[in-house]
Amino acid sequence: MMTYWGGVEAGGTKFVCAVGTGPEDLMAKTSFDTGTPEETLPRVIDFFRSQRRRSGELKAVGVGSFGPVDLRKDSPTFGYITTTPKEDWVNTDFAGAIERGLGVPVNFDTDVNAAALAEHRWGAARELHTFIYLTVGTGIGGGGMINGRPAHGLLHPEMGHILIPHDFTEDPFSGVCPYHGDCLEGLASGPAIRKRWGAGGDELAGDHPAWVLQAKYLALGLVNFICTISPQRIIMGGGVMHRKQLFPMIREKVLASLGGYIKAGEILDDIEGYIVPPLLGDEAGVLGGIALAMQISR
Amino acid sequence: MMTYWGGVEAGGTKFVCAVGTGPEDLMAKTSFDTGTPEETLPRVIDFFRSQRRRSGELKAVGVGSFGPVDLRKDSPTFGYITTTPKEDWVNTDFAGAIERGLGVPVNFDTDVNAAALAEHRWGAARELHTFIYLTVGTGIGGGGMINGRPAHGLLHPEMGHILIPHDFTEDPFSGVCPYHGDCLEGLASGPAIRKRWGAGGDELAGDHPAWVLQAKYLALGLVNFICTISPQRIIMGGGVMHRKQLFPMIREKVLASLGGYIKAGEILDDIEGYIVPPLLGDEAGVLGGIALAMQISR
Repeated sequence: MMTYWGGVEAGGTKFVCAVGTGPEDLMAKTSFDTGTPEETLPRVIDFFRSQRRRSGELKAVGVGSFGPVDLRKDSPTFGYITTTPKEDWVNTDFAGAIERGLGVPVNFDTDVNAAALAEHRWGAARELHTFIYLTVGTGIGGGGMINGRPAHGLLHPEMGHILIPHDFTEDPFSGVCPYHGDCLEGLASGPAIRKRWGAGGDELAGDHPAWVLQAKYLALGLVNFICTISPQRIIMGGGVMHRKQLFPMIREKVLASLGGYIKAGEILDDIEGYIVPPLLGDEAGVLGGIALAMQISR
Repeated sequence: MMTYWGGVEAGGTKFVCAVGTGPEDLMAKTSFDTGTPEETLPRVIDFFRSQRRRSGELKAVGVGSFGPVDLRKDSPTFGYITTTPKEDWVNTDFAGAIERGLGVPVNFDTDVNAAALAEHRWGAARELHTFIYLTVGTGIGGGGMINGRPAHGLLHPEMGHILIPHDFTEDPFSGVCPYHGDCLEGLASGPAIRKRWGAGGDELAGDHPAWVLQAKYLALGLVNFICTISPQRIIMGGGVMHRKQLFPMIREKVLASLGGYIKAGEILDDIEGYIVPPLLGDEAGVLGGIALAMQISR
């Protein structure tokens, strides 16, 4: 009988579920809008049940979730979404619901740590022990691995909320983060672009001044992550990063802002290989779920 | 025969050497100004040789060094100080010289990772797996452990060089960092205080406006480290932090800047236990050397 794993990419606006054994073998995939937990979690369970009927043994399910989430394995609320601004989902036992519904083990992490894990297993972070996966879209989130393990810490990183230099003369926009105003996410997420310029990133021309500012803020964020974590590589995904022109602009500004201080050939001589898009593209998320599942049941 | 380990705290201005088995048992300690490598490394070796004659078996030596340093164990220049602004020390085989001079194994890390290791073994970071040790003095440096291991990454963190919001209306000072001007170290190190106010931190009164600004910048730095690494605790040492009044000011500003976003009781309910001075005080550095030595030879 064929053996496979299930992955869930749980986003604030969209869920993606798939079964398979890796990027070359995604046997089925579905996606739907995020509703309430009462609507959404049964859809996840139904998808995996229908796959099971068709295709053999489901060993485990992995979930990469929007957050904040509780990742402390010894916590009574491990696997919960905790204090999210999405009110319906506050204190939702996500991992527990899937585990009870399917009777298989469930692994659980942030959406970005899951995507990072997939890139580590199959994509742009193979062989690395310390790297960052940053997504720039509806929000800005960062995850990755440090010393070969996912970055958790006290709760989990919230890299989008770092504070960066903001020149109000150049850019009087006050930011969209309800908590911090002009943190990185407040200045450079998709909603920040829309609010500042009155149009979404997908509507703005390639030579619009939005992109110079966007590259500047993202580069300032990366400089701080580089100085704090010393990653071997930075992978940048998410909707905003579909504008591939951002990559060379960001790389150039990162080099300029670091000012030659970090003497690593990986940065100074190969910035194109240091700041990269995800090799798995938009499937990094759901493949991350599958990679999480493979970690707990082989 | 008695067994003990040797520790070296190698600072840009001062070296401290000691032998012992821990903070309750520092058998001998010496310190001297940092000269050229030709002057300084033989003094280190002589100190340990004289101890050896007196007191038994020296198992290994650990060095916590100023940097940048090469920590890649597979590198031909492992244990070297690499591209430091201290010209005499550029490309100095520090660990190798000690190893050849004494015939014992030598472990090597950054000064801040060494101090962090000592605090983990004997001090304010016992039982923690992810924490930061930040020193604020002649420079600002950060180290610590992530997932139970020292933070290295590509090279090693350079936390002092993150970029933070700087309101030039409030503080027109352009910073002292030769690479970045107004990075965290450029704005908030000891030399920044001296240059901005025309007097050293030890000369300024407790109600001098320097301290409000100092606490603000250090708090902005901590907020970024918290969002990026999610540490379980932050230990702040170094000469500038001898002004203990800074601690409550920094804690208050960290809470204000985070804006309640990180919902962790460790931060929200116990900020006094979250941002703390080193329990080992100024001996964290040399004890870090001893802790490094104990890691490679028991």
